[in-house]
Amino acid sequence: MTLTTTTRDRLIEAASELLHEHPYHAVGVQTLCEYAGVRKGSFYHYFQSKEELTIAAMDAAWEAYKIEVGPIVTGGGGADDRLRRLVEACLTSTRVHSRTGDRLVGCPFARLAASLSPDETDLRLRLAEIFEEWADLLTIAADGDRSRAWAALAEIQGRLLLTATTGHDTA
Amino acid sequence: MTLTTTTRDRLIEAASELLHEHPYHAVGVQTLCEYAGVRKGSFYHYFQSKEELTIAAMDAAWEAYKIEVGPIVTGGGGADDRLRRLVEACLTSTRVHSRTGDRLVGCPFARLAASLSPDETDLRLRLAEIFEEWADLLTIAADGDRSRAWAALAEIQGRLLLTATTGHDTA
Repeated sequence: MTLTTTTRDRLIEAASELLHEHPYHAVGVQTLCEYAGVRKGSFYHYFQSKEELTIAAMDAAWEAYKIEVGPIVTGGGGADDRLRRLVEACLTSTRVHSRTGDRLVGCPFARLAASLSPDETDLRLRLAEIFEEWADLLTIAADGDRSRAWAALAEIQGRLLLTATTGHDTA
Repeated sequence: MTLTTTTRDRLIEAASELLHEHPYHAVGVQTLCEYAGVRKGSFYHYFQSKEELTIAAMDAAWEAYKIEVGPIVTGGGGADDRLRRLVEACLTSTRVHSRTGDRLVGCPFARLAASLSPDETDLRLRLAEIFEEWADLLTIAADGDRSRAWAALAEIQGRLLLTATTGHDTA
């Protein structure tokens, strides 16, 4: 791994970690650079904006998530069983908990989508694509039934939001 | 209506309108005061903080919502029919669309809940109470089945988030 790759990766990791527990508009480029141990001048060598870095962080999170749930998507059992296991896997994943693991914070993609300004178009479009790809995965698990796939994704997102806010599982 | 009431109401209305389309951390007290036509010194006569004003705005929105859906909650038909109509009413309400009506922005309670900092405890607790009261209403509609009520609320929230982000209804 070259030094160049490392600096970029450190910024992506900083964005992933900080935006996991703090709102998008409460985290600035300065904070991201300090957390990553990167000079602000270097930041703009790698990313044009916080929005571009955030898209890279979401891409990395999405790739990791696909690897995590891949075995369930193509696993045995019927569509009902696979969808149930995918919903449960999402609700109990370390990815939706705080880094210390003691608190459910919610889906990083959904929290970001819910907290964007109308003018953060590129980031919104990338999140929309991620949700479409997520629905694609669930459609495979649902034996091609796209309507059930969207319903499962809505269940995941709704339950995560309600559980994260109320503090108890709402199932 | 006294002048005192009017100033407070103008601030609540400003918070309701601005936070409906902009993220919580992108709207400051200064912006709220300018939008309401209220001096910043007056703001702190009525509210200790932006968080306290936001709680008042959410309380007002919640009261209005309860009046809107009340007739469905206690209306005719069976539990299935009432829950279906409540889900549809939420997805098509003017309350989840932009003020111009051309864009679905999502549930104001959920978007706020998803975009809070860990230290905005009072606001998070109030939103948690609103979700619990919402589940109470849906439980009445569901003939006492609280589990179905939470599932309906999760469906509402999940579908609103996905539709607002992807731009097409995900049902």
